[in-house]
Amino acid sequence: MDANRTYDEIIAWYKEISLIAGIEQHLHWDHQVNLPPKGVPQRAEQLAFLDGLRHRRMTEAGMVAKVRELASSPDGLNEDARVNVREILREVDRATKVPVELVEAMARHDSQAQSVWVQARQNNDFAMFAPFLEKTIALRRQEAVALGFADSPYDAMIDYHEPSATEEKIRGLMEDLKTRLVPFLDRILGAPRYDAPKMRGGDYAVEAQRKFGRMVIGRIGYDFAGGRQDVAAHPFCSGRKGDVRITARFFEHDPRPSLTGMLHEAGHALYEQGLPDDHLNTPLGEAVSLGVHESQSRFWENHVGRSLAFWKHFYPAFHQVFPEQLGDIPLDEFHRMMNVVAPSLIRVDADEVTYNLHVILRFEIEVDLVAGRVAVADLPELWNAKLRQYLQLSAPPDSEGVLQDVHWSLGSLGYFPTYTIGNLYAAQLWAKLRDDLGGAERLIERGEFAPILDWMRRHIHAHGRRFPADELIERATGKTPSAQPLMDYLHEKYAPLYNL
Amino acid sequence: MDANRTYDEIIAWYKEISLIAGIEQHLHWDHQVNLPPKGVPQRAEQLAFLDGLRHRRMTEAGMVAKVRELASSPDGLNEDARVNVREILREVDRATKVPVELVEAMARHDSQAQSVWVQARQNNDFAMFAPFLEKTIALRRQEAVALGFADSPYDAMIDYHEPSATEEKIRGLMEDLKTRLVPFLDRILGAPRYDAPKMRGGDYAVEAQRKFGRMVIGRIGYDFAGGRQDVAAHPFCSGRKGDVRITARFFEHDPRPSLTGMLHEAGHALYEQGLPDDHLNTPLGEAVSLGVHESQSRFWENHVGRSLAFWKHFYPAFHQVFPEQLGDIPLDEFHRMMNVVAPSLIRVDADEVTYNLHVILRFEIEVDLVAGRVAVADLPELWNAKLRQYLQLSAPPDSEGVLQDVHWSLGSLGYFPTYTIGNLYAAQLWAKLRDDLGGAERLIERGEFAPILDWMRRHIHAHGRRFPADELIERATGKTPSAQPLMDYLHEKYAPLYNL
Repeated sequence: MDANRTYDEIIAWYKEISLIAGIEQHLHWDHQVNLPPKGVPQRAEQLAFLDGLRHRRMTEAGMVAKVRELASSPDGLNEDARVNVREILREVDRATKVPVELVEAMARHDSQAQSVWVQARQNNDFAMFAPFLEKTIALRRQEAVALGFADSPYDAMIDYHEPSATEEKIRGLMEDLKTRLVPFLDRILGAPRYDAPKMRGGDYAVEAQRKFGRMVIGRIGYDFAGGRQDVAAHPFCSGRKGDVRITARFFEHDPRPSLTGMLHEAGHALYEQGLPDDHLNTPLGEAVSLGVHESQSRFWENHVGRSLAFWKHFYPAFHQVFPEQLGDIPLDEFHRMMNVVAPSLIRVDADEVTYNLHVILRFEIEVDLVAGRVAVADLPELWNAKLRQYLQLSAPPDSEGVLQDVHWSLGSLGYFPTYTIGNLYAAQLWAKLRDDLGGAERLIERGEFAPILDWMRRHIHAHGRRFPADELIERATGKTPSAQPLMDYLHEKYAPLYNL
Repeated sequence: MDANRTYDEIIAWYKEISLIAGIEQHLHWDHQVNLPPKGVPQRAEQLAFLDGLRHRRMTEAGMVAKVRELASSPDGLNEDARVNVREILREVDRATKVPVELVEAMARHDSQAQSVWVQARQNNDFAMFAPFLEKTIALRRQEAVALGFADSPYDAMIDYHEPSATEEKIRGLMEDLKTRLVPFLDRILGAPRYDAPKMRGGDYAVEAQRKFGRMVIGRIGYDFAGGRQDVAAHPFCSGRKGDVRITARFFEHDPRPSLTGMLHEAGHALYEQGLPDDHLNTPLGEAVSLGVHESQSRFWENHVGRSLAFWKHFYPAFHQVFPEQLGDIPLDEFHRMMNVVAPSLIRVDADEVTYNLHVILRFEIEVDLVAGRVAVADLPELWNAKLRQYLQLSAPPDSEGVLQDVHWSLGSLGYFPTYTIGNLYAAQLWAKLRDDLGGAERLIERGEFAPILDWMRRHIHAHGRRFPADELIERATGKTPSAQPLMDYLHEKYAPLYNL
């Protein structure tokens, strides 16, 4: 009785914090999509104000004490309430354990490091960025110590993005994946049929691409009454149930990136749109981890959107949009064009087979950096050695190598592995969903996406943050997460494509 | 010394309040332009939260006391600081003098009254709305008593929108204007050359209208690096220096409303974009009144945008955009099409001559309502009688008569007169600016708008809320505000158009 009254108070307080976060998300979205240049300083002030307000609310001593007390003696609370209290405690801990001076020092440093990184990348000058990265690592190690960890400071860094993961667990998955993926890639590159079909260059009008893409994501279940699709320099998904917005970018010479990008962001959006209504703005109504989020985007982008079944359904309509550009390209050739395997320097442009090698490379490097086993100055060399070993590529300029990603400049350590975790989860969900539905391909081929989305709603979306991410996947699939389903999927798909 | 320290504290506090208001403005803009339907409830919660936060800050007892104290003994403050304190005190008084229960009662009632009004207008059922309007008036009278007033509760209502005006001052202006405008309209309608040239119906592509309109507002000085122009159901201007956004709506059958609408909103935006940088988010960096704001929009819409000089400059380019639609229509005929005088039922569609008669009608009615001289039940009859007397129109259905405007349903009494005050100010500014620049028409004809905007920047925009609105106009023009300049302008313009 008393516990439930305290719980209600905590939820009201948390919902307000979440409401502020929602406003901030929206202001960020507007910044990316709409903000005129002269509006930037005022927008920065608005965000700094809301950020400070949110942090002050989250660390109010009275409420923090109530959360801690209720979490330690939750008698009288029902199951849902216990989950919410457990998850709110996690956030309270994160907000209160790190000294304010360190939070401010990190914010100041990250902002500076990010500007320097932009310059360094532009000038292909790693040495310029190196001292900033050193300080980033030192600061994040201090943060990890403040937060506490069992085995390694890297665990505390991962925890922010993928709560159920640890350095050790991820290393196991990555090692397993790498030892299978490197030889698999080698076989593809040496395949008798290895050639990379090129998209026919041509004038793919942006408006036509956008219209087709919007039709497709509407068909898989993206709800335009609870979101929008806009154009931005970077594709992203933002917002929460009721108003989940996605963006895309377009290239006139090639319609594939916008299509796969829209499917990817729609996958993220379907997750947000599928979270339970009655828990809006509480942990049970929130996505559980970046890895699970990425599993949803990759599922729709790759397992669905690059499948032969998918294009059996949509290629005729797509051909009607660009009849001259696509000419006499038959379906199976177009499907190959959607699934070209080709090692390339830039992670965000990588195909399904090589993508995770990019991630493994980064994971290995950042783990060693955090542990102090490698020096920042040695990164370019290390990067290029791994690039050759995993991806058979020779050393690029640092601007297209070690300097290519924004993550480290923002202090985001432990973020990269969530991309591969997402791919593993996606493949594992795909395998189970195919079994359960008795042939997802036949549904896809007929354009019947509702049963697929419904499966995902029930097994993933409906649970919010109820279970830790790895447990959620295990409950959905009956198996602990592993590299096996992804390798199975890749074999099944690429063996016929490349006559392996 | 001490005063200045208190002043700095007050300004920091006020700037934060202003920052919150800026976020709210942006969220409203997004609601009109972008928000998907399912995002509406969450957006309402966001706005209610920020509104409450802003009100709580504004009424913090400690800060309120400091403002009152500093306002009563401003020794040691410079002139700018004194102005800011004077204006902040006005807002503090408004926020603190009205009891919270009354504020909440008004908010609840207004929200309900607005929904009822939508229904009543749809059903052409004034009786349905009448009891709500009665309660609106009763509540606003209570508010006026709480705020205090010298002569009439209506004064307190006007004060919110047009601080320097009073019922008595406005009645003088309105009476003067009406006694000249009614016979003037009569002369036009009886003119030998009276006919209403119609825009040639046709396919005026929306994108082409928009592109042309954007070019035009860019040429008069609207800064796209500090704003945006979007499409919305209602044209409006929103935001503050650095990010002043405007919207327009488009009709395929007639390009005039979008053009004049874009010029109107750009006029509002030029004011916001012209406010002094160094006073951003303080009263000296804010617009002084709705009347002055409207003077800026009407100046560019009417005095500039409907002038022969303006179309001498732009008609060739406009004709190139719509060569077939405009065909052999010569410049002077097109100029007449931009200046058709024709009494019509709906205020927002009215021309320059009849527009103010719509406002006078509303002003007279609301003043009598507030004074209790007329009963709500008699409004339709009163409305229609004035409509016949001032505009020579016979009684419409109430949905196109007394129920047409949203203002009363929102509790906005004392708002309507600011439209006419804006028109009077615009004409007075136009007359003086022409004198000062020695022929503004020649500049306009050459497309040289910079000296005109510069004059307005120096005489109006630069001053923010330094002077009361009527004093600002008197300082800019050397004359107290009157109906004379508007009547002079109308005579000069319409006499030749209608061979009077």
